[in-house]
Amino acid sequence: MAVRVGVIGGGQLARMMIAPAVELGLDIRVLAEDHGMAAQLAATQVGDYRDAETVRRFAREVDVVTFDHEHVPQEVLRLLQADGVEVHPGPDALQFAQDKLAMRARLEELGVPQPDWARVEDEAALQAFLDDHGGRAVVKTPRGGYDGKGVRVVSRAEEAADWFAATADGDALLAEELVPFVRELAQQVARRPSGDAVVYPVVETVQRDGVCAEVIAPAPDASEKLVEVAARIGVRIAEGLGVTGMLAVELFETDDERILVNELAMRPHNSGHWSQDGAITGQFEQHLRAVADLPLGDPSPRATWAVMVNILGGPADAAMTDRLPAALAAHPSAKVHTYAKAPRPGRKVGHVNVTGDDLDDAVYEARSTAARFA
Amino acid sequence: MAVRVGVIGGGQLARMMIAPAVELGLDIRVLAEDHGMAAQLAATQVGDYRDAETVRRFAREVDVVTFDHEHVPQEVLRLLQADGVEVHPGPDALQFAQDKLAMRARLEELGVPQPDWARVEDEAALQAFLDDHGGRAVVKTPRGGYDGKGVRVVSRAEEAADWFAATADGDALLAEELVPFVRELAQQVARRPSGDAVVYPVVETVQRDGVCAEVIAPAPDASEKLVEVAARIGVRIAEGLGVTGMLAVELFETDDERILVNELAMRPHNSGHWSQDGAITGQFEQHLRAVADLPLGDPSPRATWAVMVNILGGPADAAMTDRLPAALAAHPSAKVHTYAKAPRPGRKVGHVNVTGDDLDDAVYEARSTAARFA
Repeated sequence: MAVRVGVIGGGQLARMMIAPAVELGLDIRVLAEDHGMAAQLAATQVGDYRDAETVRRFAREVDVVTFDHEHVPQEVLRLLQADGVEVHPGPDALQFAQDKLAMRARLEELGVPQPDWARVEDEAALQAFLDDHGGRAVVKTPRGGYDGKGVRVVSRAEEAADWFAATADGDALLAEELVPFVRELAQQVARRPSGDAVVYPVVETVQRDGVCAEVIAPAPDASEKLVEVAARIGVRIAEGLGVTGMLAVELFETDDERILVNELAMRPHNSGHWSQDGAITGQFEQHLRAVADLPLGDPSPRATWAVMVNILGGPADAAMTDRLPAALAAHPSAKVHTYAKAPRPGRKVGHVNVTGDDLDDAVYEARSTAARFA
Repeated sequence: MAVRVGVIGGGQLARMMIAPAVELGLDIRVLAEDHGMAAQLAATQVGDYRDAETVRRFAREVDVVTFDHEHVPQEVLRLLQADGVEVHPGPDALQFAQDKLAMRARLEELGVPQPDWARVEDEAALQAFLDDHGGRAVVKTPRGGYDGKGVRVVSRAEEAADWFAATADGDALLAEELVPFVRELAQQVARRPSGDAVVYPVVETVQRDGVCAEVIAPAPDASEKLVEVAARIGVRIAEGLGVTGMLAVELFETDDERILVNELAMRPHNSGHWSQDGAITGQFEQHLRAVADLPLGDPSPRATWAVMVNILGGPADAAMTDRLPAALAAHPSAKVHTYAKAPRPGRKVGHVNVTGDDLDDAVYEARSTAARFA
């Protein structure tokens, strides 16, 4: 019997698990938020992932539960575990991806390098943090942020007044040092329930407007030491937090060659999309192997360079499918991955991977292909 | 709207179209022979592909019809065309894949090198062919053969008596010269309805018991001339027969460096499975691009060598999924593709692709991985 992997959430990450699941012989089933979502082909149930009975019903028909996103509530995850369901990553790990304050505290215990940070319960506490850090800081809502949402750079405490007002009693915001980074990196690690782990090469990520725009794998001009330190940080977090499946660690590289942890994601991640075409084992296949407790695959690159460029939605009347023929005609070696999402402006609707021996050529080719959809 | 590609037949070739269809954003739908077939995930209808109304009903819900196999009857294909359905490859091309006598006659018109052959209506005619060709020949039933079925090497005409007895009035068998080949090759070509075509590198295929066992891409020690001649033959056949989608041309290489056409297939083919992991554009993606009339992708290899080894079913109680963990553990860089088929002895149930710079290593790795399932 094929292992039945249940994915909660029907977005593009679930969609991109379909291809490797078919090849590997896993029976993938998706609990989608709605009809017609990106992972529609594998959707076996539509429902609200916050509703315990909906999720329990879905879980009864699968051997392991994993995720397209990190938003399934802790109490629902705990109920699944009490039911005896395999959940990867489990709630003990996921809490650190769901709550950035908990993440910061735990990374501190683990001795992982990260920006200065503080739990700030009110404007006075934030102002004190600002005063200690040169008058500027990053403020984050601990929960629910993504792609730049829930993140604000402030120089006066009252700029976060609305967030403080919306914060429940006993909750707080996260204040972080504004790191003077020279570039952003990402480190991915896959880890099985048994503890076996494999490490991907550290990559460079380029963000625009808080959204990942491009990824270059491996990170250009990375010293051996940087590669090694990034890998060590990734493994320490995966082990320390008990992550199963894919872990992505977003990193800042400073001008004095330190690397500091920015964000975590416990699932396949935009910074790893290059691996679909650029690594022996892509991150979606690797995630499936890890959560199904199969031996992990070789994460080595297939080419000298892999470049990923996101395709962001343009005008709503320009469907990606209409632009596909011209893009493919002009760029026969580019790999275009589509998400079957309505193209709202700024929304990630697909991405392009290009591999090759020449980095400039690969960047040019990937950008040119993505630009065909703009 | 995504282009809806309807695939007739639910076997492993349809199954392996699912992954690239998802990534490319094509809406793949399969008319399967039964429930629980290899391409189950994309099956939208179950029914008999020989029944015109079944096929017409399926075709009404898609933009283009293509195939997992070549067995849909001509009269059904003609009805679809009369209904205005896009069919790729179309019946005019497919007739040459369905009838080996028609194929031989047409290749002769095209001037394509092939073994000596004759249409033989009775034992006397076959005996005359034998007498002219050193007393041994290959006899084939013109229709319905595959994987060595419908093919017999004979030295006396009465060895084909049962086939002659089963042959309807006016029909005949195909007699072919027994070519003293040094190895077998395969040439793949993808062709769009517009006529655009791309050519894959010629590969070496190793058959055992009439079934493809291994493929090495590109064919080792192939001279430039051989590569060029094989490509030219492939393109000439694709154009001459009006093939749309993938065409595979199985070839004999003789000890005097000639190449002769053995068989044709107008669909993705076992000799092209290496391209899933070994080429920029795998044959399943390429077939979808071609039949959906999208620009063709780059067929260039991703690595110096790609080796494909088939996994044949062993004892019926040993499901592939049970053997998968040990295989993946021992061979982290091998790509295992599963067909979700019950493992009857000798039945193709999956294959392994390995890429690399060293051919001996790649062959060893691919064979060792496949052997884990024996």
